Amino acid sequence: MPDPAAPSDMIARLRLIRSENIGPITYFQLLARFGSAQAAIEAIPDLAARGGGRAPRLVPRSQIEREMEEVERLGARYLFLGSPPYPPLLAELETAPPALMVQGHVTLLDQPAVALVGARNASAAACRYARQLAQGLGASGTIIVSGLARGIDTAAHDGSLESGTIAVIAGGIDIFYPPENEARQRAIAERGLLIAEQAPGVEPRARHFPYRNRIIAGLALGTVVVEAAPRSGSLITARLAAEFGREVMAVPGSPLDPRAQGCNQLIRDGATLVQTAEDVLEAIEPGQIRPFRQPGRLYAPPELSTDADERHRQLVAGLLSVTAVPIDELIRQSDLPAPIVQTVLLELELAGRLERHAGGKVSLAA
Amino acid sequence: MPDPAAPSDMIARLRLIRSENIGPITYFQLLARFGSAQAAIEAIPDLAARGGGRAPRLVPRSQIEREMEEVERLGARYLFLGSPPYPPLLAELETAPPALMVQGHVTLLDQPAVALVGARNASAAACRYARQLAQGLGASGTIIVSGLARGIDTAAHDGSLESGTIAVIAGGIDIFYPPENEARQRAIAERGLLIAEQAPGVEPRARHFPYRNRIIAGLALGTVVVEAAPRSGSLITARLAAEFGREVMAVPGSPLDPRAQGCNQLIRDGATLVQTAEDVLEAIEPGQIRPFRQPGRLYAPPELSTDADERHRQLVAGLLSVTAVPIDELIRQSDLPAPIVQTVLLELELAGRLERHAGGKVSLAA
Repeated sequence: MPDPAAPSDMIARLRLIRSENIGPITYFQLLARFGSAQAAIEAIPDLAARGGGRAPRLVPRSQIEREMEEVERLGARYLFLGSPPYPPLLAELETAPPALMVQGHVTLLDQPAVALVGARNASAAACRYARQLAQGLGASGTIIVSGLARGIDTAAHDGSLESGTIAVIAGGIDIFYPPENEARQRAIAERGLLIAEQAPGVEPRARHFPYRNRIIAGLALGTVVVEAAPRSGSLITARLAAEFGREVMAVPGSPLDPRAQGCNQLIRDGATLVQTAEDVLEAIEPGQIRPFRQPGRLYAPPELSTDADERHRQLVAGLLSVTAVPIDELIRQSDLPAPIVQTVLLELELAGRLERHAGGKVSLAA
Repeated sequence: MPDPAAPSDMIARLRLIRSENIGPITYFQLLARFGSAQAAIEAIPDLAARGGGRAPRLVPRSQIEREMEEVERLGARYLFLGSPPYPPLLAELETAPPALMVQGHVTLLDQPAVALVGARNASAAACRYARQLAQGLGASGTIIVSGLARGIDTAAHDGSLESGTIAVIAGGIDIFYPPENEARQRAIAERGLLIAEQAPGVEPRARHFPYRNRIIAGLALGTVVVEAAPRSGSLITARLAAEFGREVMAVPGSPLDPRAQGCNQLIRDGATLVQTAEDVLEAIEPGQIRPFRQPGRLYAPPELSTDADERHRQLVAGLLSVTAVPIDELIRQSDLPAPIVQTVLLELELAGRLERHAGGKVSLAA
């Protein structure tokens, strides 16, 4: 693959990333099959036509050039997957962000990190506890990752600003959300590390928060949840951490406290109960990491094929419905080679006819 | 064995049980080897002499007769191990009490029971929680077992007095401790079930509480701990429950609450986190019981031998020290048949030269 530091390749990559119908998984498959972002861009109209639809409208070059100027003007920089100092733990994810924007000290990405997340409406006691836990972990050389939300996130960053804090935000790197955290976000961009996946100027919307949460969980050896209501965003981060094979830790609370319900349920579901920084360090120490965790394992996109033909496309499309099914199931039922099925799915996706879901599932686009 | 309902056999059994140097394990071995308590009593002087000491002073017949009259006068009755309605789950224990005194409804022993224990100085909120948990479990037909101590125990009994409550006390059945629970103890003796292992008139002493705790844990399918400080009696009950292969459950609390430390540590050590009666019922349902739990398995005392001679006694005694060692280790190191070693240990014990410890360990008497 070309050096992603070359401006022309960066532009081609960003054009792919910023375009509709192209998520991280499709992006990886295109780069793996065509060898470069530019070659993928040139191949897309033909792929989409074979998928039975119109090619996705690619973001124009000029828009990416403006974005790159803006990133430079903000004093930020890009990190591209595949090139240092892109964080290696994050690169393990199937859905690793192809590009990140960062402001601050990228050397923080070289140190072991723990995510510390929790309720926005946390109790004062829990916030003080989270700040002290972050301090304790920081004193041991552990970097704290959080989401710069109100409540626990804010306390986690405050406790680790001196020792090393990484804030991952849902919107663009120049957007201050929540507004009262503007000074805190500026301080982290200067003394810690601020990370955004969305382009500058993008206001955070509801769908951006789960994307943000996957980065928080993906950067860390483990995620600690402090006070979380059932079905809260913090629990999504914890679930993602478990999916990524990372340690999931939770701080317990009284059954009489509604804000403890999410954490207590996590512990019932197998999360490690932690009370102190020592508990957290014990849980993430290399010997303790669960067997399915394979450090340094980069996600490898599935193999594609140049032999997919109309018969294959009809067969696979006929097996799809609006109900998501595992790709493995499609391969089995179609009795076709996996690279053929993956190729047909990529073509359908670029044609806007396919949606990808968590857990390697796909469905017809609604 | 003779029918333990025969008064003469009851007297002989109680004479053994109430005598020094004869704990439950020795009692079982004597009964298994000699077939009846009376035969064991007659054999003891000879066994002790072979063990190199004087025979333990057996409690006189007249003292037991007075005890039996007192038990009858109190409206209590004996339960002897091996005869219904002695509780079958308790009979599984290696250290099952050979005899219990009970007052109240023995039919409560036929229903599934959960032990609910905790701190004497528990918070008001935790006491209210324990009372409600006991009520919820009672509503499902589960009997509550506890120790009639202040705090959580009291709340557990109060919540289950209507539905079924069993109180196990450390002293004699006629001793009210703590004094402020006299009315509660009388109510349980009338409407629930009151259980004591010590003879009437025995004031509870520190060494009686772990004995009491083993009965609480032994009667129940599982033990729930609500608020417990580290190294508290409730944790001993939980540890005993785990040793007996029963479910250990704990109610979590904030790391900021010192009274939650014991429970949180239990959960870290593998106890099931419970918040509701449903959580408890789920944990103790038959399918959930841990594999090493074998319901209905009665403890079988080790086989003894009539062939032990002086050479064997010297060999085994030479391997003993004041440091407790597992009996299995003695068997291996002496290279003698297990029944010979067990016989020598029994003789040494009756001679006052041996002490038995938890986990099948023995040492020279200090």
